[in-house]
Formats: sequence, structure tokens, C-alpha cells
Amino acid sequence: MGFHARLEDAWSASGSMLCVGLDPDPTRFPAALDGAPDAIERFCIAIVDATADLVCAFKPQIAHFAAHRAETELERVCAHIREHHPDVVLVLDAKRGDIGSTASQYAREAFGRYGADAVTVNPYLGTDSVVPFLEHGGVIALCRTSNPGSGELQDLDVGGEPLFVRVATMVAEQWSQYGDCGLVVGATYPAQLTQVRAVAPTLPILLPGIGAQGGDLDASVTAGATAPGRGLLVSSSREILYASAGDDFVAAARAAAQRTRDAIAAVSPSARSH
Amino acid sequence: MGFHARLEDAWSASGSMLCVGLDPDPTRFPAALDGAPDAIERFCIAIVDATADLVCAFKPQIAHFAAHRAETELERVCAHIREHHPDVVLVLDAKRGDIGSTASQYAREAFGRYGADAVTVNPYLGTDSVVPFLEHGGVIALCRTSNPGSGELQDLDVGGEPLFVRVATMVAEQWSQYGDCGLVVGATYPAQLTQVRAVAPTLPILLPGIGAQGGDLDASVTAGATAPGRGLLVSSSREILYASAGDDFVAAARAAAQRTRDAIAAVSPSARSH
Repeated sequence: MGFHARLEDAWSASGSMLCVGLDPDPTRFPAALDGAPDAIERFCIAIVDATADLVCAFKPQIAHFAAHRAETELERVCAHIREHHPDVVLVLDAKRGDIGSTASQYAREAFGRYGADAVTVNPYLGTDSVVPFLEHGGVIALCRTSNPGSGELQDLDVGGEPLFVRVATMVAEQWSQYGDCGLVVGATYPAQLTQVRAVAPTLPILLPGIGAQGGDLDASVTAGATAPGRGLLVSSSREILYASAGDDFVAAARAAAQRTRDAIAAVSPSARSH
Repeated sequence: MGFHARLEDAWSASGSMLCVGLDPDPTRFPAALDGAPDAIERFCIAIVDATADLVCAFKPQIAHFAAHRAETELERVCAHIREHHPDVVLVLDAKRGDIGSTASQYAREAFGRYGADAVTVNPYLGTDSVVPFLEHGGVIALCRTSNPGSGELQDLDVGGEPLFVRVATMVAEQWSQYGDCGLVVGATYPAQLTQVRAVAPTLPILLPGIGAQGGDLDASVTAGATAPGRGLLVSSSREILYASAGDDFVAAARAAAQRTRDAIAAVSPSARSH
């Protein structure tokens, strides 16, 4: 089953647009995990099991594993998600982007090794750099990212529209001919999200930037949801993973995930009544 | 010692602008390595030892290791280069690009775990996405890539110049304030390389695309070299790694590297006499 169909089912089954990002940071782990050789794996699986019924997706961020030589732990976390929470979509956040022959190797990593439903990609190299991914799974392209400097290139005017709108159009019209696509738009830029929705009315949008980055949840969900509970993967990482620094981190993470899920759901329906 | 100083010394010591790309493909390995559990590591180290005196840099492409669960082998290949060929620059080809907190994790991977002198990055997220890298090592930004679809976004007109020229200017003027930078320009586009050199006259340029991709070595070296033997890392991978499919692959790789080094050197001086 493809990325879009899996995501539709996940939205239905969970009643949630929350996507929990797995960004393990061993310096913030609770004391109970101190010194454990598989602390990253145990921490992530504890978070996954505590929140799986509250989310439509999990999104491991591969840099946080690679920096700690923990690719094997990431494999086991992904296998655990697929085995124990098969209805939850698995997005590998890797922001890949390379020429075709190399893209094929990255596709093998994302979809074969880690079993992801979709992988985040960078659009700068153009369509031929993502076709090898779309032959095997979904891609979610960076469009208007959540960081402060995102506008430096992404807002440049290209023939009467900003570059990020051109990217959204390229993904919606060209890339989508090859497979199931989505877009990344930061919750820190709700006005730009409205511009993206004008040219990509149906693509799933991965929305990072709420919480630590200061994004506007209400305005973003209003601008981005396509129907109640549909259209968005609202990503939250640190606020959930590190809701407590103590050994009660599992319960605290679940409570934080519930609050975020409910805050998202409280916005979504009204958005569609406009 | 920083990336630029290391590269200057490597150009001087080797008399070469050749950069051998390490893109291991087990399906193309010689029979002698069939079934060896550490075949990727042994193959790469054999190539490295056979060509180290002919190159200014080695450039492992991380996707080709990640697809085969071979990060530990990549660590050992990088350690071998640093220990046995300390004058050769080590470029990690990973094309990273992410928000600052994640970029810090990728920097730790590239410079800490693998000990690279520089890492390739994607410019789409802007300046704040590369500062965490430049605090610890060099970055080489994608500018005009070698693939067929590179022009889709990179050639878009942004206020009277193409996007890739704007990227080159941003890297030369802004990013370079934070550390040692370079650019990636494909040998498949020598006219665009001339445009890049007009706004970035001194930055090192990583030049992929000769050989299998059909790039124009003569025109590219003429356009890109800043002085005889200076200014470029001319990357070649498949033509050297797989010069022979037989157990004579080491000698064949060395011969191919010598031919490429000499072909580069034959162009470079005349370029500067214009």
C-alpha cells in the first residue's frame, strides 16, 4: 500500500494529525537509562509505545542516530514500529538529495533498510533526483522550511512567485506523476502555508516548527488542513520526548502528546467551516 | 588546520587536482572479494592505497555505505586515510541540509565520527543551516549540479541572474565569513562554471561529472582552475574504481587515476595563459 493510502488510513484510525518526531538526545535522557549501551533504542521504543495510539506517524530524524553511531538502533526502532504499530506511518527524516545513481542507494536505505513509508528530500537537484525514490515509496519535499534563514533562497522571486511556491507546483504537478508526494512547510510561516495550499490543495503537508521553534499551531492548522483531521502531519519532537527529564518521562510524553493532539483537533474542524 | 589550508598543501604535495570518489558497489567488486563480510572496507582501502599519491582528495559517498549497513566500514576507511595518507584531504559527500539543531548532529557525524575535512551540503535552507558545520570544518555547497534536471530550479531567474549564481554569491560573500567554503559545479556544464567563477573567483570547486556522466574535462578545467594545479577537486569515481572487473582492479584503478590526473594537468596550465 502506498504512502498516501497508508496516511489516509492512519488519519482515520487514529483520529489524529500528530506526528511524533524521534530526535534522541542522550544528554536529555532520564537517569534510568544512564550508561545503557542501547539507551537510544530503549528511549525511542518507550516513547513509541506510549504515544502510538495518539499519532498518525512517527518521524525518526536520522542525524540524531548517525551522530551517535546508532544506525543499528534506528533499524530496530523502525522494525518495532512496523511490527507493533503497523497502522502508524513511518517517515524517515533524512532530507536526501543527490543525482540518480546515488539517489537509488538512498532509496534502498530508506525503504529497504529502515522500511519507511516516505522519506524527506531536498528539491534543489530537480525531478530526476527523486524519481528513484518514488519507484519504491513516498517523498516529502522541503518547500518552505521552519528555520529563521529559510527565506534567503526560498523566498526569491522567480517570475512573479517565490521559489517555494514554484517548488510546491513542481511537486504537485510533475513529481506526483511518479508517485506519492508531500511537502514540508514550517508552522513558523502560516502565511506561506496558505500560498502553498493554493497550488497544492491536496498534498499531505509535514508541518514542523510548533513548540521549541515557536510556530503558530492555530494559524497553521487553519491554513493547512484539507478537512477535519486531514491533510497535515503536525510534527512535534522535543516537547514530547523531553516533557520530563525524570524517570516519569513515558507518562509525561504521553500527556504532552495528548495535549498536542487535542490542540490540533480543536482547530481543524473550524478551519473547514470558513 | 582548516579545509582551505589542507587543500592548498594537498595540491602542492600531490601536484594533482584529482579527487577519487569512493562509491562502493558490491555487485561490481572483483571475484577475490566475493562474499567477504568486510568487502566494502577492503575494496575501498585497496583503491585508496593504490591512488593516494596521485590525488589531492578522497571523497567517500555515504549513500553507498548506508545502503549496505556499512557505516562502521566507512569509519575504518576514513581512519585509514587519515592515518596512512594524512596529506590527502577527506571530503564526506553527504549533501546534508537541515535546521540548526539537526545540522549540529550532522556536523558531529561528519567531522567527529568520520574525521572529514569538509562535507558537501545543500544550500536550500540558507545560511543558518550551515553555520553549525562551519564551526567545526569546511563545507562544499551544491551550486550547479551535474545531473540532467539540475537546471529545473538552479537555472531559474532570480532578479536578473540564475539561482545557482545567487547561491555562489551567497557562499562566497556570506557563508565564507563563518569558515572555509567551496562549491559543487558539474563538469557537464562548463559555461555555468564560468558564470560561477565570475562571482566566486577563489573558492575551491568540486567538479563531478567527468567520465560516466559525460562532462567536458578540458572546458571545465579551463573555466574552473584558478592557477596551474589549483582551484579544483576533479572528482572521478566509477571510471577508477571499476576500471577492471577482474582481480587486477588495483593496478587498473591506479592506471586510470594516472591517466585522469595527467589529463587534468595537461589542461590546467594553458587555461591560465589566456
